[in-house]
Amino acid sequence: MKNPFFNNYGPILIGNILNILNIKNYNLNVNDEIYDIKDLYTSGKSDITFFHSKKYKESAKLTKASFCITTESLKNELPKSCIPLVVQNVLVCVSKITSMFYPDAINDDFDDSIIDISETDFKDKVICGKNVLIGKNVLIGTNCKIGHNTIIEKNVSIGDNCSIGSNTIIRNSLISNNVKVLDNCVIGKHGFGFFPNKNKNLRYPHIGIVIIEENCEIGCGSTIDRGSMSNTVIGKNTYLDNQIHIAHNVKIGENSIIAGQVGIAGSSIIGSNVKIGGQAGISGHIKVGNNVEIGGGSGVIRNIPDNTKVMGYPAKNIREFLRDNK
Amino acid sequence: MKNPFFNNYGPILIGNILNILNIKNYNLNVNDEIYDIKDLYTSGKSDITFFHSKKYKESAKLTKASFCITTESLKNELPKSCIPLVVQNVLVCVSKITSMFYPDAINDDFDDSIIDISETDFKDKVICGKNVLIGKNVLIGTNCKIGHNTIIEKNVSIGDNCSIGSNTIIRNSLISNNVKVLDNCVIGKHGFGFFPNKNKNLRYPHIGIVIIEENCEIGCGSTIDRGSMSNTVIGKNTYLDNQIHIAHNVKIGENSIIAGQVGIAGSSIIGSNVKIGGQAGISGHIKVGNNVEIGGGSGVIRNIPDNTKVMGYPAKNIREFLRDNK
Amino acid sequence: MKNPFFNNYGPILIGNILNILNIKNYNLNVNDEIYDIKDLYTSGKSDITFFHSKKYKESAKLTKASFCITTESLKNELPKSCIPLVVQNVLVCVSKITSMFYPDAINDDFDDSIIDISETDFKDKVICGKNVLIGKNVLIGTNCKIGHNTIIEKNVSIGDNCSIGSNTIIRNSLISNNVKVLDNCVIGKHGFGFFPNKNKNLRYPHIGIVIIEENCEIGCGSTIDRGSMSNTVIGKNTYLDNQIHIAHNVKIGENSIIAGQVGIAGSSIIGSNVKIGGQAGISGHIKVGNNVEIGGGSGVIRNIPDNTKVMGYPAKNIREFLRDNK
Repeated sequence: MKNPFFNNYGPILIGNILNILNIKNYNLNVNDEIYDIKDLYTSGKSDITFFHSKKYKESAKLTKASFCITTESLKNELPKSCIPLVVQNVLVCVSKITSMFYPDAINDDFDDSIIDISETDFKDKVICGKNVLIGKNVLIGTNCKIGHNTIIEKNVSIGDNCSIGSNTIIRNSLISNNVKVLDNCVIGKHGFGFFPNKNKNLRYPHIGIVIIEENCEIGCGSTIDRGSMSNTVIGKNTYLDNQIHIAHNVKIGENSIIAGQVGIAGSSIIGSNVKIGGQAGISGHIKVGNNVEIGGGSGVIRNIPDNTKVMGYPAKNIREFLRDNK
Repeated sequence: MKNPFFNNYGPILIGNILNILNIKNYNLNVNDEIYDIKDLYTSGKSDITFFHSKKYKESAKLTKASFCITTESLKNELPKSCIPLVVQNVLVCVSKITSMFYPDAINDDFDDSIIDISETDFKDKVICGKNVLIGKNVLIGTNCKIGHNTIIEKNVSIGDNCSIGSNTIIRNSLISNNVKVLDNCVIGKHGFGFFPNKNKNLRYPHIGIVIIEENCEIGCGSTIDRGSMSNTVIGKNTYLDNQIHIAHNVKIGENSIIAGQVGIAGSSIIGSNVKIGGQAGISGHIKVGNNVEIGGGSGVIRNIPDNTKVMGYPAKNIREFLRDNK
Repeated sequence: MKNPFFNNYGPILIGNILNILNIKNYNLNVNDEIYDIKDLYTSGKSDITFFHSKKYKESAKLTKASFCITTESLKNELPKSCIPLVVQNVLVCVSKITSMFYPDAINDDFDDSIIDISETDFKDKVICGKNVLIGKNVLIGTNCKIGHNTIIEKNVSIGDNCSIGSNTIIRNSLISNNVKVLDNCVIGKHGFGFFPNKNKNLRYPHIGIVIIEENCEIGCGSTIDRGSMSNTVIGKNTYLDNQIHIAHNVKIGENSIIAGQVGIAGSSIIGSNVKIGGQAGISGHIKVGNNVEIGGGSGVIRNIPDNTKVMGYPAKNIREFLRDNK
């Protein structure tokens, strides 16, 4: 899939990539053009990919990419058609190369492309408050309302019959029909992703977006960060209460109900028909199944299978929790 | 009590109510006028009420309402003067009928009745920042300050000597004298109340308001939702720190102190002289007595009697908690 | 150190101070001038100090202040050069006297000294959004960006290459070079500090500031309160995620990483190279060492030594936590 929002500055010569990675004496044509950086599975002949963990050995063997950033110990898993570029820290190097292709996805300074909605064609189409600002590359459907002081920054698509509150900021997001986003939210900013580095951390690009499917409601003061390499997704008819934080790459299914002050850390996947009580927290890279109920205040640090009710910190079966805490 | 803010669209003909409830073949005068929907206890001869749980049997026997939405198994508890309207799901039907009487209380789109304070009579009376917006039906007392970009939406009464911060949004609220509301708050929006329904949840009306009594302080980034059928109340001289969430119908007593990031779920009742430590959470429909201390991070899932100190998740006696966690 | 931001209204005659403290019949020159109120250690001959706990006996013996607010039982620890002013509640009296010297530090009403940035010299220097407001006594370095609707209230210094988001409010803060503050933050407001008092709490002044050192990043919707008697400090290259609350007087070291929705209560001191997982809470007056890792959801209620990993509520050694919660 072509990235809908972030401009790809490729093709980039492989020679320039080698320079950035500080790799020398490679016996290859430095003028080969590379068009994109993708994961092992989706990359094609004109892309560069990366391989940093044994976990991905099977995908590595089948990759179609012509170049792969990897380590000395993993390089022999790659097919002959893929030239390994051996580095010390794969992820830091991936960050550097992704930054070459998508330099606009690293920093989230305020959008200075913005103009007042009264100076745009939306002024006759959208029912809007005072001081509404609209960035470049924004689409808004029919019968939408946008509240006072709200900023629709660049790269936003809003469907029909949506209601956006006041003092809210949205960028890099696809919002479907009949969605409500209440006041004081920030949606689509980059996530909390960087490589720790003494004196100056190294931020990596966030080329994912936020997708909010139809009939969702997002409560006041919530923050939903866009994804780094994948998207952050809120499924159809899922309702979020106030002051919720959804980190980058999280995916939430349909018809779920998430109460106030819940936090979901990066890359976790939540099923459909899930209920999460207030102030519960879900660790990163967790999988929560369908039809799960998570009690208020719980801390989920392990995967939760379908059709279970859990509570506690760490969360366990709710009957067990109540029995242990009579 | 007449609702101070939400317009009652009654009287409504009982025939129209039966249509909405999909009830047929009732032997009654479809032109009878119904003036309001109220609970079993407060409703009078011209009102419709509802009865959905055995818990309320005693009130049901004494209700003065002429009509009652109820179930097959409960209908015989009603007095003869009250005609039962039998349905499958009482609360969903109550929501539908309440929506007929109070259609303005369902959705909280931004207030488009708003104008800049400089175009109102408040401009000479209120000390205010830039870009302050004022909705319909707003009262503001003497010696008040309102910060930049703050929106006082419709149906707000502010007493004397109040200080409202910047970037704050208030609607459907009664604020007494000497109250401070700091920056970035949202006060008086509808609560997180709806009937879960596949593909499209069914929001019910919130006809309650937020009442903040005198001398209170509300910290930055806090959200206080208005009530559904009753009000959300913050008692006299109660102080809330930053990033607190108070859900619909919550009542907090006087002289209480609530530290940062606390969340109180719907319909809980907190006493006076209560201290709640940072990040503590109180489940819904809980009763916390007077002079209670709740340690930081606690999760309160059961009622707490007067004059006790609790801590833990679930919260228990603090001495027990400290002994168990040496 | 002279307070950089809060105007000292001294000197104040000792006679006026005695009046406020309701102290009579003292045999001293009521026309003596007092220049400041400071702690036992830093005060000089022309200052008044305070001594309220045996803990500070050693400092009390060596104080150079000419006057000291203290109690009957502690007064004999003071040197002969220091005249004890005996009161019932030392801290309440300190609050009253501090309020005489620094009346501007008690209330945080919105800054009405503010003007639109387009009316200031910054308009040619700062890349800024719509509706940016600037208070008195503000400095901004080169190459800075400030987003829409953001309010830089009085007493703020921003270094070079900083990026401030939209809808953010900053006051009483020193922000170093290369700092990013994202959207919807409130930085530099007074902390949650007051003496509980029936019917009307007594707020004490906050004469500290917020210091954010170079290369830091502060996530969306975060609140950082300024100090009461000392400063609130975020060390170099420390990154805060979204919806974090940092209370007054907290000090965080360098190169630390703090995930979403964490709360740190007043006066706690966090070391360098510390990692804190999402939703963790740190009680007040806690000391967390260097190179500490605190698991998500933890509640830290005791000091944590250097080089340890903790998790749980209350937080304990992480191996112990995982073993106890298999």
